[in-house]
Amino acid sequence: MYQYAASLTKLIEQFARLPGIGPKTAQRLAFYVLNMPKNQVEEFAGALVEVKNTITTCPICCNLTDVVPCRICSDEGRERSLICVVEEAKDVLAIEKTREFKGLYHVLQGSISPMEGRGPDDLKIKELLKRIGQDEVKEIILATNPDIEGETTALYLAKLLKPMGIKTTRIAHGLPVGGDLEYADTATLTRAMMGRHEIT
Amino acid sequence: MYQYAASLTKLIEQFARLPGIGPKTAQRLAFYVLNMPKNQVEEFAGALVEVKNTITTCPICCNLTDVVPCRICSDEGRERSLICVVEEAKDVLAIEKTREFKGLYHVLQGSISPMEGRGPDDLKIKELLKRIGQDEVKEIILATNPDIEGETTALYLAKLLKPMGIKTTRIAHGLPVGGDLEYADTATLTRAMMGRHEIT
Repeated sequence: MYQYAASLTKLIEQFARLPGIGPKTAQRLAFYVLNMPKNQVEEFAGALVEVKNTITTCPICCNLTDVVPCRICSDEGRERSLICVVEEAKDVLAIEKTREFKGLYHVLQGSISPMEGRGPDDLKIKELLKRIGQDEVKEIILATNPDIEGETTALYLAKLLKPMGIKTTRIAHGLPVGGDLEYADTATLTRAMMGRHEIT
Repeated sequence: MYQYAASLTKLIEQFARLPGIGPKTAQRLAFYVLNMPKNQVEEFAGALVEVKNTITTCPICCNLTDVVPCRICSDEGRERSLICVVEEAKDVLAIEKTREFKGLYHVLQGSISPMEGRGPDDLKIKELLKRIGQDEVKEIILATNPDIEGETTALYLAKLLKPMGIKTTRIAHGLPVGGDLEYADTATLTRAMMGRHEIT
């Protein structure tokens, strides 16, 4: 049967391997690449290889970085007594965007998920405990996701850290800003009620 | 402000340039690439560059190909008196999948679209006329898309080819197989009624 030229078929297959890219989208992307100027395609190909060659994990906070230690860990202006624990590197960027947090981070590189066979040993918890032993850490903020896996992970870490005498906090749950009470789900509303605070 | 490492940011930007890929998807894809084995990433990068280096346009039918002339044009088993005119290389694959058509193709590389500033001169019509002059073409099947641009293109070509004394046909419009009459739009139903044929 007739097929596209081998190199085109191969590129379509390569695109189709990516998450969320079906066969039709893969075909569309491959055709788009065909019509791109050659130097742009080479730049794209170069970016793919470069990312594998330059990005590594920070030995301190386990965040993705191209310098060792990472820019946040080596930033002298950061409050070193405060560590915000997140699941993924993306979460660091999300929190940094608020421009509110001036402490350090620790990226667990996942969450506890028995369903997906991920236990505490698969996360960068050992590295976190090591940091607590070495540095003068005063507070650990658990900023894992507000889903079952994230809550489980936060609970696990809280139980682990409490005997060590370190203040352990969890980011607040409640109504999203700009949200509508009417459309809030019961679980969120319950947490919002429980987490109420006096207006001063 | 904190940003991802430069090479990661660059890869996210590269993905975001592709059609239908927003910033969030681009980020997800870049992170996926980060977790891919290095040899797979290199294979992907290689496929990108290779497609630009190997794929060219067939000088006869204007289809995409890695050999000149393309595999269909050089296939001796094909009926050379029949040319199916399509808009894009993708359409060739779609028709080939039916395994019903044994003639040759001609890829216009687009359709007449005044809205997008594409006129007849932007299509591979000159190349089609050249083929008609040289080969013993008996029938031209106009298989452009059943939308406004495709219909316009088909009409334009039909008017151009008629004085040349070549049989010019248009693929049929009607109800899609497995479709439901109740949900068919009026235009399709009208065409289906007009295109009715006697059951023999």
